Amino acid sequence: MTLDLTSVETPAGLVDRAAMEANARRVVAYCAEHGLAWRPHVKTHKSTRVARIQLEAGATGLTVATPHEAEVMAAVCDDLLLAYPPVGARKLERLMALPERVRLTVALDSTDVLHPLAAAARAAGRVVGVLVEVDVGLGRVGVQGVEAVVSLAREVAATEGVEWRGIAFYAGHLRGRAEENAEGMADLSHDVSALCDALAAEGLPPEVVSGGTTPTLWQSHEVARLTEVRAGTCIYFDRDGVAMGVAEPDHLAYTVLATVVSTAVAGRAAIDAGSKALAKETRGGLGSFGTLLERPDVNVVALSEEHGMLDLTGTDWRPAVGERVRIVPNHVCVSVNLQDRILVLDHGALEAWPLEGRGRLGGGA
Amino acid sequence: MTLDLTSVETPAGLVDRAAMEANARRVVAYCAEHGLAWRPHVKTHKSTRVARIQLEAGATGLTVATPHEAEVMAAVCDDLLLAYPPVGARKLERLMALPERVRLTVALDSTDVLHPLAAAARAAGRVVGVLVEVDVGLGRVGVQGVEAVVSLAREVAATEGVEWRGIAFYAGHLRGRAEENAEGMADLSHDVSALCDALAAEGLPPEVVSGGTTPTLWQSHEVARLTEVRAGTCIYFDRDGVAMGVAEPDHLAYTVLATVVSTAVAGRAAIDAGSKALAKETRGGLGSFGTLLERPDVNVVALSEEHGMLDLTGTDWRPAVGERVRIVPNHVCVSVNLQDRILVLDHGALEAWPLEGRGRLGGGA
Repeated sequence: MTLDLTSVETPAGLVDRAAMEANARRVVAYCAEHGLAWRPHVKTHKSTRVARIQLEAGATGLTVATPHEAEVMAAVCDDLLLAYPPVGARKLERLMALPERVRLTVALDSTDVLHPLAAAARAAGRVVGVLVEVDVGLGRVGVQGVEAVVSLAREVAATEGVEWRGIAFYAGHLRGRAEENAEGMADLSHDVSALCDALAAEGLPPEVVSGGTTPTLWQSHEVARLTEVRAGTCIYFDRDGVAMGVAEPDHLAYTVLATVVSTAVAGRAAIDAGSKALAKETRGGLGSFGTLLERPDVNVVALSEEHGMLDLTGTDWRPAVGERVRIVPNHVCVSVNLQDRILVLDHGALEAWPLEGRGRLGGGA
Repeated sequence: MTLDLTSVETPAGLVDRAAMEANARRVVAYCAEHGLAWRPHVKTHKSTRVARIQLEAGATGLTVATPHEAEVMAAVCDDLLLAYPPVGARKLERLMALPERVRLTVALDSTDVLHPLAAAARAAGRVVGVLVEVDVGLGRVGVQGVEAVVSLAREVAATEGVEWRGIAFYAGHLRGRAEENAEGMADLSHDVSALCDALAAEGLPPEVVSGGTTPTLWQSHEVARLTEVRAGTCIYFDRDGVAMGVAEPDHLAYTVLATVVSTAVAGRAAIDAGSKALAKETRGGLGSFGTLLERPDVNVVALSEEHGMLDLTGTDWRPAVGERVRIVPNHVCVSVNLQDRILVLDHGALEAWPLEGRGRLGGGA
């Protein structure tokens, strides 16, 4: 990196374009090899330009979590999965106001969500695809048990305004290195197969079986019947991903540029990236809030809102006030969500890209 | 509350105006009783309208952390303390471009920050007040030891473009109930007194002795020589403040309105306020990420980015999909920072107030 970053006001979210594009290519190649579609979740980046890079690399559609993300991403993609139950009149209104060309699919886990959605779709003259969300062990959302899934699928198929498309799940409980996930992946594969068989026996074979997380990304093919991978974090990766062995340090595409603002306390240096730039997110075993890109032995051991504290006890490096550092956050998605924009490093140049999907209201409101 | 909140899109940051105004009055009354000035930190609310309420209640100025907060708050206040070392050319430029009528004071802890600031002030034809930041035990920033403080104070007094005004400190290590802080407050008072004496002996008696945190708010008068309290969180308070006994549940002025989106998992309910609305911030002893305003026995026990998980095992209450709840976050400042705006409840009406101080660049960029 010969680029002079000294004029950039800190803290700032930096994205390495080459690393990001290589990540997208790597995921697409893996998916192609295994006959899977990649429908990345945009919650990680919230940027239409990053979404375009994913689509140009070969992503077949996008996954969104909020009506605002759907509105923003409709500008670059005609095939959107809302992987979140839309509850409340205003959210349904916004979804129904998406351009007609958008093929919208919604993942949901109850008739309480299904029927208002179907009513809104009928009123809008649309047909909305539905995936039944299944709990595969995380215990967050999702229908419990084969019988209940089949029952909700039947209800979807019988309801006007919506169209039965298949199932979705999120195996967020499978985290760690591949060998630690092997048993969980085998169980998941078994459960998904059984579910698909039960649905087929009812005349409702799922066209879409949507799953896939970044921690289990390269094991996605171990899940029988899977058709699509929603992994989103893999566009940037983060400290967590490297710790789990899903990414190499070279794949890290996002860092927070920060400035050392105080070295008054012995053994520490204060930087201007705190919890309002990095997000105070611990992750199992990481033990701190981030690490320096160029000095992985230096950790961010404490965060206040605008201060990050670097622990210098394990290094001879003694930064001066004014020195710039790049922090790898534990969890990239929540750090990106705190930025005004990203600064994209591209062949020695820096370009500011807006995060149009940030927030909920749009228009910078 | 008879107001119908069902039309509000969730998640949303709600502020109870009466509670907020009562909090401001309570702090001002306390400070007046003890001869202290209140210079609230705006990082909690980031809103010029909330700042106006503080100033109208009797706050004597405002504290800010970023150049952007300073720019925004200059519209409503002529007396700003930047309680953060401004490092980097762009930050200095922005500070020097503040309206001339703004009396700016900066807290800093090194000559590395002092001299570029003084040079920028001279170039701009301004005089910037300086408080020497002293570490009183937190180990974050701040000059270490009486001698070094006196030395930096002398340097400030001898430097053109800046004006010696006094000292600042942040006793963020004193957290917990008043009785737990008693010894720490006594030590702090002793140290601050000794420091003021040492400075006076050098002909540099501090005109300003700036401290005060929300956890120790009602004990601020125990610190001898203190002139000003910067406590900011006390405009809203939060779960942490109630747990420490600094606030009563009635004083809670900020909550996150959320909607139940799934009850598929037994013993739990999923709401649409996750870490991107509440912030995933644990606080010592709280053991979860937030609690329901109306049902303090129901906690938010897990957070993903857009999901919060309510633990229903300790209650008979079984919410339906679509039901609204109000969450008291552990740490209000970081939750507010995630909102697009606040919705202010005022005598049964709801009004949207912008958070102009959010972000770093302004203009919704």
